[in-house]
Amino acid sequence: MPSSAQRVTCHSKTNKEPVMTFETVAIIAQGDMGAGTGAQLVRNGLRVVTNLSGRSERSHMLAKQAGLEDVGEDNALIREADIFLSILPPGQAVALGQQMAPHIKSSGKNLIYADCNAIAPATAQEVQAIVEPAGARFVDVGIFGNPPTPEKNGTRYYASGPDAAEFGRLRNQGLNVIECGDEIGRASAIKMCFASVTKTMIAMMAETVVAAKALGVYDEVVHELSGNQTDGFNWAAKRVISTPPKAYRWVAEVEEIGKTFETVGLPGATCTGGAEMFQLIADSPLGEETVENRQRGTTLEDCAAIAADYIGGLKP
Amino acid sequence: MPSSAQRVTCHSKTNKEPVMTFETVAIIAQGDMGAGTGAQLVRNGLRVVTNLSGRSERSHMLAKQAGLEDVGEDNALIREADIFLSILPPGQAVALGQQMAPHIKSSGKNLIYADCNAIAPATAQEVQAIVEPAGARFVDVGIFGNPPTPEKNGTRYYASGPDAAEFGRLRNQGLNVIECGDEIGRASAIKMCFASVTKTMIAMMAETVVAAKALGVYDEVVHELSGNQTDGFNWAAKRVISTPPKAYRWVAEVEEIGKTFETVGLPGATCTGGAEMFQLIADSPLGEETVENRQRGTTLEDCAAIAADYIGGLKP
Repeated sequence: MPSSAQRVTCHSKTNKEPVMTFETVAIIAQGDMGAGTGAQLVRNGLRVVTNLSGRSERSHMLAKQAGLEDVGEDNALIREADIFLSILPPGQAVALGQQMAPHIKSSGKNLIYADCNAIAPATAQEVQAIVEPAGARFVDVGIFGNPPTPEKNGTRYYASGPDAAEFGRLRNQGLNVIECGDEIGRASAIKMCFASVTKTMIAMMAETVVAAKALGVYDEVVHELSGNQTDGFNWAAKRVISTPPKAYRWVAEVEEIGKTFETVGLPGATCTGGAEMFQLIADSPLGEETVENRQRGTTLEDCAAIAADYIGGLKP
Repeated sequence: MPSSAQRVTCHSKTNKEPVMTFETVAIIAQGDMGAGTGAQLVRNGLRVVTNLSGRSERSHMLAKQAGLEDVGEDNALIREADIFLSILPPGQAVALGQQMAPHIKSSGKNLIYADCNAIAPATAQEVQAIVEPAGARFVDVGIFGNPPTPEKNGTRYYASGPDAAEFGRLRNQGLNVIECGDEIGRASAIKMCFASVTKTMIAMMAETVVAAKALGVYDEVVHELSGNQTDGFNWAAKRVISTPPKAYRWVAEVEEIGKTFETVGLPGATCTGGAEMFQLIADSPLGEETVENRQRGTTLEDCAAIAADYIGGLKP
């Protein structure tokens, strides 16, 4: 077995045999957060493998920039890995668990499966129920902030579950891991409540300005809001402008928030509506924008006007 | 006819006979905004009449403090008045139109009926369709800000419709009237979009902190929000704390916002959920609070804990 300065012997709570810290991380990462997390681990000396077969040109580009190694198939991915990270649009979290389970089983490995997606606690438990019988140890992770960069590493990885401490060893490889309890679902609960503010409240703000445009009262509404709700308006307006390229993947995230709220007896409709709003933005010409190349929707009024035009309600 | 320095002759757009500015304003006002508006008119030399029969002790108290004159019946109210203001919980706007229409008709008066409630443009048009055939001229008004006081008169009264300029004469009696067009529904549209931010977005924030408490992750969520969404969090948290005594009347207001959004093809579910959230707060022990006498729910955490306890989901 290769030796490494970063390698220390430790014990997980559920497995008594010694477990090494990680040399190779497998990651299924389709977007900015997955690529950013992978790049941070590579910068900190880890080998990070992925499987790019069938992926988009953009995913290939992001993986290459991040220094990820393409092993070409899921089976090889699990065989090579000490720990597996799932970082995807939240609607794909369960399907990825189903896809990886047979490979985990055939590998005979007791690797860590960390679901880092923005999903409801109940969805995290659903993934757990798929990958644990295959032999993995499940860790529930919620990611906060923008992807880490060489200049800025403010991203927080909240981790919960009996094996959270083991995921916490990635602190040695540059991830800000915050262990937050033994319960699977706890990290996801924190993520869902936070995302309610950064996603669902912002959907509400987007709906407001699109409605104002469609009703022909945009100037008056923005005058009142910017003058009398200044902090809230400025905070929300900035986030509405950054929404269009991400709206398509926030649909499922907001649905997961609704699922979380309904579990404790709170209204899910707020989130049903929020998801509809992001779907509308994704379906409109605004949805054609990418993070790297914004042409339209770079001001609040332009965002509102394009979406209002799309729903057919544009008034002068 | 009595003379007054404030009295000038003018013409409405729809009626060619001369119309005097107002000496007597009738107001149906059950709460703080109605009483505050009435008091401001009284302070500026107007006689303000109301009908307190069947009203709560609190309404009597507020009317007395405001210097309103109780004429005891709706018929007398219309008979005495040059202009009628409806300032009620929004769910009662249509019913008040139906209640006043016969008295307007029997009076034979062509008075201004100003609906100042937080209602959808379509609801304003519904009230118009009730009171205009009875002989009134309808003005659509949306009120912004807190009630005027002797110290602070920042309240804005947006007015639209063919007779908005006539309502605008109340500028001479201390109201900040902003005329915003000839279309009935335009003032209400501005109000609805503004209130979406000050009410529906705040319902979303309230739901978030109650969920966090119920899920046992309140400290972590508030830590993340206050540290990383500081402006938005501080703005919203302050408003959540001021919500409980008003939640009962925000239910219908948020439903009206949803109705407004649906008219232009936007999701109504956000508002359905927001209304459910305010109903939940109103039904919980928090709903027993009054503006004058807050005992509980004076911190964000206490609000969240009381509501979470009420829904049966309180976790340590």
